[in-house]
Amino acid sequence: MANNKKMVEAITGRDEDFAKWYTDIVKKAELVDYSSVKGCMVFRPYGYAIWENIQKDMDRRFKETGVENVYMPMFIPESLLQKEKDHVEGFAPECAWVTVGGQEKLAERLCVRPTSETLFCEHYKKVIETYRDLPKLYNQWCSVVRWEKTTRPFLRNSEFLWQEGHTVHETAEEAKEETLRMLRVYEDFYRDTLAIPAVVGRKTEKERFAGAEETYTIEPMMHNGVALQGGTSHYFGDGFAKSFDIKFQGRDNKLHYPHQTSWGVSTRMIGAIIMVHGDDDGLVLPPKISPIQVAVLPIAMHKEGVLEKAGELKDMLSKKFRVKLDDSDHAPGWKFAEYEMKGVPVRVEIGPKDIEKGQCVIVRRDNREKIFTPIDSLVETVEKTLQDIHDAMYEKALKNMQEKTHVATTLDEFVEIGKSEGGFIKAMWCGETECEEKLKEITGGVKSRCIPFEEEHLADTCVCCGKPAKHMVYWGKQY
Amino acid sequence: MANNKKMVEAITGRDEDFAKWYTDIVKKAELVDYSSVKGCMVFRPYGYAIWENIQKDMDRRFKETGVENVYMPMFIPESLLQKEKDHVEGFAPECAWVTVGGQEKLAERLCVRPTSETLFCEHYKKVIETYRDLPKLYNQWCSVVRWEKTTRPFLRNSEFLWQEGHTVHETAEEAKEETLRMLRVYEDFYRDTLAIPAVVGRKTEKERFAGAEETYTIEPMMHNGVALQGGTSHYFGDGFAKSFDIKFQGRDNKLHYPHQTSWGVSTRMIGAIIMVHGDDDGLVLPPKISPIQVAVLPIAMHKEGVLEKAGELKDMLSKKFRVKLDDSDHAPGWKFAEYEMKGVPVRVEIGPKDIEKGQCVIVRRDNREKIFTPIDSLVETVEKTLQDIHDAMYEKALKNMQEKTHVATTLDEFVEIGKSEGGFIKAMWCGETECEEKLKEITGGVKSRCIPFEEEHLADTCVCCGKPAKHMVYWGKQY
Repeated sequence: MANNKKMVEAITGRDEDFAKWYTDIVKKAELVDYSSVKGCMVFRPYGYAIWENIQKDMDRRFKETGVENVYMPMFIPESLLQKEKDHVEGFAPECAWVTVGGQEKLAERLCVRPTSETLFCEHYKKVIETYRDLPKLYNQWCSVVRWEKTTRPFLRNSEFLWQEGHTVHETAEEAKEETLRMLRVYEDFYRDTLAIPAVVGRKTEKERFAGAEETYTIEPMMHNGVALQGGTSHYFGDGFAKSFDIKFQGRDNKLHYPHQTSWGVSTRMIGAIIMVHGDDDGLVLPPKISPIQVAVLPIAMHKEGVLEKAGELKDMLSKKFRVKLDDSDHAPGWKFAEYEMKGVPVRVEIGPKDIEKGQCVIVRRDNREKIFTPIDSLVETVEKTLQDIHDAMYEKALKNMQEKTHVATTLDEFVEIGKSEGGFIKAMWCGETECEEKLKEITGGVKSRCIPFEEEHLADTCVCCGKPAKHMVYWGKQY
Repeated sequence: MANNKKMVEAITGRDEDFAKWYTDIVKKAELVDYSSVKGCMVFRPYGYAIWENIQKDMDRRFKETGVENVYMPMFIPESLLQKEKDHVEGFAPECAWVTVGGQEKLAERLCVRPTSETLFCEHYKKVIETYRDLPKLYNQWCSVVRWEKTTRPFLRNSEFLWQEGHTVHETAEEAKEETLRMLRVYEDFYRDTLAIPAVVGRKTEKERFAGAEETYTIEPMMHNGVALQGGTSHYFGDGFAKSFDIKFQGRDNKLHYPHQTSWGVSTRMIGAIIMVHGDDDGLVLPPKISPIQVAVLPIAMHKEGVLEKAGELKDMLSKKFRVKLDDSDHAPGWKFAEYEMKGVPVRVEIGPKDIEKGQCVIVRRDNREKIFTPIDSLVETVEKTLQDIHDAMYEKALKNMQEKTHVATTLDEFVEIGKSEGGFIKAMWCGETECEEKLKEITGGVKSRCIPFEEEHLADTCVCCGKPAKHMVYWGKQY
């Protein structure tokens, strides 16, 4: 039990120091390690296995909508990056530049991709000739580089892993549909796989992606009320097509510019999982992406028949779930703490007394509930329990988000909520960037999150300037 | 039929100009596109889907041996790369260097990883404390960069995709076992998944990986007799551990250096698939990794019931195979040529007369054989046919390799074979690098491929210098 206590004590309390609690979990659950390059992380096996499970699930969802995977080069010549004016302005300041290749200085320096719109456009120009070649629905899984000054594991890294979808369509309508379709895929994934609720909607002009006509976003709320931009989907119109001279012969035999989209989510999602679901004992992983779904722990391992029975349980469960049997010589208390830290959704305990009774004990990670179950029905009970855990995690996160969402109808209210309680603020807005900037400044960082698809009418006037309101906006601080 | 002819004529004959035939296939089968950075390729959907199928199969094989996936940063600080002397000498000349990050010149330049031994060692130093932490069996799938002067799609690229396994062990014996275990995994994969035979063995000192004590290799032969280094597995001894000061507390409570390995294969494998199996009509893909295993082609599509029946066949087959139903308005001849070019193992033709008879026609890509089969037993027949195709492809490639493998017992024989026929040469060798260099020079590029595990005794003396022979070596030109 000494080890057990030591381990639990080693984590900062969530409500004591949220930032330290976060980095404690990242380290103690062995998700990542730092490397000697600032802001570049090592994904350790447990952290990477979470990402692999996320990839597998999302990739299936993408492919079901007709998306195909490709791989673009990691280098972008400076002249190519400069082809779209807004885009280069947005990204050039944070690029890493290769200037020497082999032993020679390069004639033109190469940017390590911060995002790949320009590379996709260069390729699309070559392979799109007529409307029959459309749509192109491409995606790639890769790493990208954005040179950041201050970095935090998963949330802000100089190099991170992500997927970026890039599509080309015959008409603006089809491209807009695609933009929203992929936003829905993200929303479904967050809800049904990660058990994370979120507000979705479109970004204000100020918060749009560099080069986009419209940016849609999914914004989950962390336990402490701070928002995380959880994924974005952009509609580009024909702006990139014009900059890159991509044309196709239409059904009318004339040349047209196609319409484009891009959409992406990254390993930030793992940060969201930690900060939405985690507690004072460590990670709490959504069952669908947990690398270990069931930990089988033999109690009084030296007693006759215990290890054998634990092995049987493991074999039964392995047919349906990702299972780990821990027969190491650590004390049970150490093991309990270890699998709690790693957020394993359920542990199954089996000891001599259980064997006598033909039962075992299931312990839920999310609420510590103990469920005694006959061994004969173990698989069914675990299956139901994992679903119950998913549902309960979602409900708990939803309740937190609802409790930390406030309405502000006056500037004083807005500032008071923004400065004290945090969370989301719902408030009316006139549509002017000036008001966004003012609200951010006087609250110390509250920004517009999104304009939801279904706006409520909370007041007639902008919460900031008092002029007629155009939209209801979700506001909040962000990671 | 015009389209059909046009397409077939567009490919250079394999025996006419092998190099041109290769690049024609790469382009016509839509595997890759060139990018504006020399030697960096775009993997198009069909090319990338082949890689995804390769990854899925290999990844399963790795994990079955206990390997875990991780992800290391893409940047290596110059000082870290320099820690192992032989290693840096091998790779520094072909590194791409990042010298500017954000808008500032970096204090230390960063190499874009050409391979990641140094990064793994840096991490291992931090996470290995005692023998209980061993072995570490890590792998990563990523892209690496080696600045090449002359490049060819898949075979030699400035950026390419690969996997690199890096393991750490308590004893030299365990590390040596791991090195050979992974070589066997590659050999099994080539044979059982890619239908490609190969010679395997260890490299001579001259051909070893930079920093390795022993390098093992798998060397398949292309149709034209040229070898391709298809995968390597390295035993490092404790050299890297000493350079990076990685130590663990042993069972004797003393500090020891662990022993390490690394092993990798890359997208070159796709080059091997093309050059081992392809023919004058295009790709011939091994059934297990073909993105489309069955193309269902309706004949006389406008006739009543044809499309409906083709849809039924697709649904039946999709339960077991990757299937594409092509109901586009191209002529059947065009479709035949298209799926032949793409190397789809079988096509299933269904027309009005077939429907009357309750049958359909299966056409094999590898030998054009037509198999008439009742629709009721279609799934079973396709399953058997795919296995037959795999087996026949392997046998054909094996026969080619055997026919193009020659024995040389004199220098004249060696030179004559090396200069004229190509293929592998089996010959005795004294063990001296000098002889390897001489043989390479006088034959215009014949190098040692490997020393096989089971050496034949072909003569008493070295084929080059006439001194006593130490080993039988496979020799050949390489890509």
